[in-house]
Amino acid sequence: MHKIIEGGVCAPQGFKAAGVHAGIRKNKTKKDLSLIVSDVRAAAAGVYTQNLVKGAPIYVTQKNIADGYAQAVICNSGNANTCNANGIEIAEKMCALVEDAVGIKASDVIVASTGVIGQPLDIAPIENAMPALKSALSGDGSDAAAEGIMTTDLAKKEIAVSFEIGGKECRIGGIAKGSGMIHPNMATMLVFVTTDVAIAPALLQKALSEDILDSFNMISVDRDTSTNDTVCIMANGMAGNEMITAEGADFDAFKKALAAVTVYLCRAIAKDGEGATKLLECHVKGAKDKQSARTVAKSVICSSLFKAAMFGADANWGRILCAIGYSGADVDVNKVCVSLGSVKGEILVCKNGSGVDFSEEKAKEVLSEKEIDINIALGDGEACADAWGCDLTYDYVKINGDYRT
Amino acid sequence: MHKIIEGGVCAPQGFKAAGVHAGIRKNKTKKDLSLIVSDVRAAAAGVYTQNLVKGAPIYVTQKNIADGYAQAVICNSGNANTCNANGIEIAEKMCALVEDAVGIKASDVIVASTGVIGQPLDIAPIENAMPALKSALSGDGSDAAAEGIMTTDLAKKEIAVSFEIGGKECRIGGIAKGSGMIHPNMATMLVFVTTDVAIAPALLQKALSEDILDSFNMISVDRDTSTNDTVCIMANGMAGNEMITAEGADFDAFKKALAAVTVYLCRAIAKDGEGATKLLECHVKGAKDKQSARTVAKSVICSSLFKAAMFGADANWGRILCAIGYSGADVDVNKVCVSLGSVKGEILVCKNGSGVDFSEEKAKEVLSEKEIDINIALGDGEACADAWGCDLTYDYVKINGDYRT
Repeated sequence: MHKIIEGGVCAPQGFKAAGVHAGIRKNKTKKDLSLIVSDVRAAAAGVYTQNLVKGAPIYVTQKNIADGYAQAVICNSGNANTCNANGIEIAEKMCALVEDAVGIKASDVIVASTGVIGQPLDIAPIENAMPALKSALSGDGSDAAAEGIMTTDLAKKEIAVSFEIGGKECRIGGIAKGSGMIHPNMATMLVFVTTDVAIAPALLQKALSEDILDSFNMISVDRDTSTNDTVCIMANGMAGNEMITAEGADFDAFKKALAAVTVYLCRAIAKDGEGATKLLECHVKGAKDKQSARTVAKSVICSSLFKAAMFGADANWGRILCAIGYSGADVDVNKVCVSLGSVKGEILVCKNGSGVDFSEEKAKEVLSEKEIDINIALGDGEACADAWGCDLTYDYVKINGDYRT
Repeated sequence: MHKIIEGGVCAPQGFKAAGVHAGIRKNKTKKDLSLIVSDVRAAAAGVYTQNLVKGAPIYVTQKNIADGYAQAVICNSGNANTCNANGIEIAEKMCALVEDAVGIKASDVIVASTGVIGQPLDIAPIENAMPALKSALSGDGSDAAAEGIMTTDLAKKEIAVSFEIGGKECRIGGIAKGSGMIHPNMATMLVFVTTDVAIAPALLQKALSEDILDSFNMISVDRDTSTNDTVCIMANGMAGNEMITAEGADFDAFKKALAAVTVYLCRAIAKDGEGATKLLECHVKGAKDKQSARTVAKSVICSSLFKAAMFGADANWGRILCAIGYSGADVDVNKVCVSLGSVKGEILVCKNGSGVDFSEEKAKEVLSEKEIDINIALGDGEACADAWGCDLTYDYVKINGDYRT
């Protein structure tokens, strides 16, 4: 079992982090440049957007961790460095600046950018901020790093857990950003995870690639798959456990702790969806297979109509049935049961594909809470899946109607 | 060539229509029950939602026109008659009421319902309204029928054209409703088309099935594929042209006139999208094949982020590139060029996948108009496609946050 601890990405042994205001964003004070470093070279793995339009930093990061190792993450907010003619050059320059400032080889740096697409990223403010970024590096720096990668996020997203592998205490920490353009096909906006577990790069990649199928791939704010989605993990081995080089109990223990970190960050991202007032958590059970369960869960939390209904605390369950019906999953509509729940209780709204009587007053009370469960039983098998989303609100429109100008 | 004429679904020879307030909706005056009848039995064809959750009327309509003929359409708004245990029974009762009132066989009636899902549809108000509906039937009734099928629509959607086949003047008329839950997979919400062309049922179905690929399948308001999408056409042959029984010049002339009607209705539906202030018309050219062109065009007009940017008249073209990239179409991003246009002019915003300098002031002026063109050149071939959507606004959220209660 794991327990939740303080420290974010600096909780694992041998990691430091920092975040500073470099002036990339117009805002005069918000931190917009973050750095995470490991004392030693770490096994590294990553998953990236499946959008054909990819941010330039993704190409550089893929190249830099192709050998399975990395030692630092640099990330700016305010500009995505995407669809720019000189994007690769700028991303490589960011890695070189890390090498100059802290002595970690440019080819061991994970680089990421988030913000507006299609505006050239000026390297000057980043270059000028490197001394401050270096001197801010500390074991307490996770908070600042989490802030430095935020764009329209309202809440910092940070978590760490400790657990045991072979009698050794190990830790995993993570920070994330993501609020709009969230509909990952492979990974969500930006997530950086650190761990002091000793694990071979191939196993680290396997653990991450399997994890995201049930974590970051199961959230959606607006069905817009970003060009810059990146989840990277560094494992520096400083916990002193016996190196994980094959599947087995140690690998499973690591995966379980990793899932605790990633699912926490998923819920945090969905809850902080642009303009969101509510976290929607859809639990599908009784599906004929895992993929059907995932497809149904994700379709429901993606429905604009249902999301708007949740904003209005309106138990308009027909929109849930509608979203199940067009999801593409093979479902027997006549077996579908749906209930809606929150801390205020649970109400059955649909049984075997048809409506049941329920108290609208009670439904309003249940749906006026901040975290809503949508429980769907398909009655078709044993598979289940969860997905996370948020309501669709006036503020989503406001934020995205004038984000750039 | 066709010309636009008055009269909607009553423009073709031998059609009458009516719309009355039956009291299905809470609103005390809005018409909510419509009837269209042909003087003689007509060839009939239909296309329907691909949602697994289908409105009960769809099953009844499919059965009734399975022989290729129909003579009347009855349609209510205010209740979708979907996810109700007695749905089929009620839909069949509606057809029987038409037989009782106007003497057209129940098995020749096309039935449709639109409105809230999952609330039993009371037959009583419909039964009570039949005498009024019958006596309202007239050659001037298209307007009333168009009003009777509206739900959250703000504008009536009605069109008619005349054209020639073999020296005979022919006519096609259509009415449509659709504002939310618009993302047809096979057809949009409700569209009823009449024509006095003489055409065999199989050819009529072929013409309709081909037409929707580039008309109703290319619009989206909110990516929610309704449970009740239906497009039906009746062709009563009263124009006196030689019966169309095979492909050829006459069939082509009919298809061209049909497209004039359907594309007009598509633009009208998109423009009247729930909460919309702007029609978005995406023109894709230079695609390697037709399906790629359609996929790209539809992905762009579906992007919530892009739709919100258009509401804000913000030329945030990166969101267009992003939507092209995740569309699933095989596109060379480095060849993509994008311009935005309206009656106020056209501005190039992206060339070969990277941004170009443009006047933000001019862009704001162009994008502040009511009809916006998004022109995308893929540079990859000769295929092209158009798609229609609308902006995402505060009012979409408002309309859908409290639609039911």
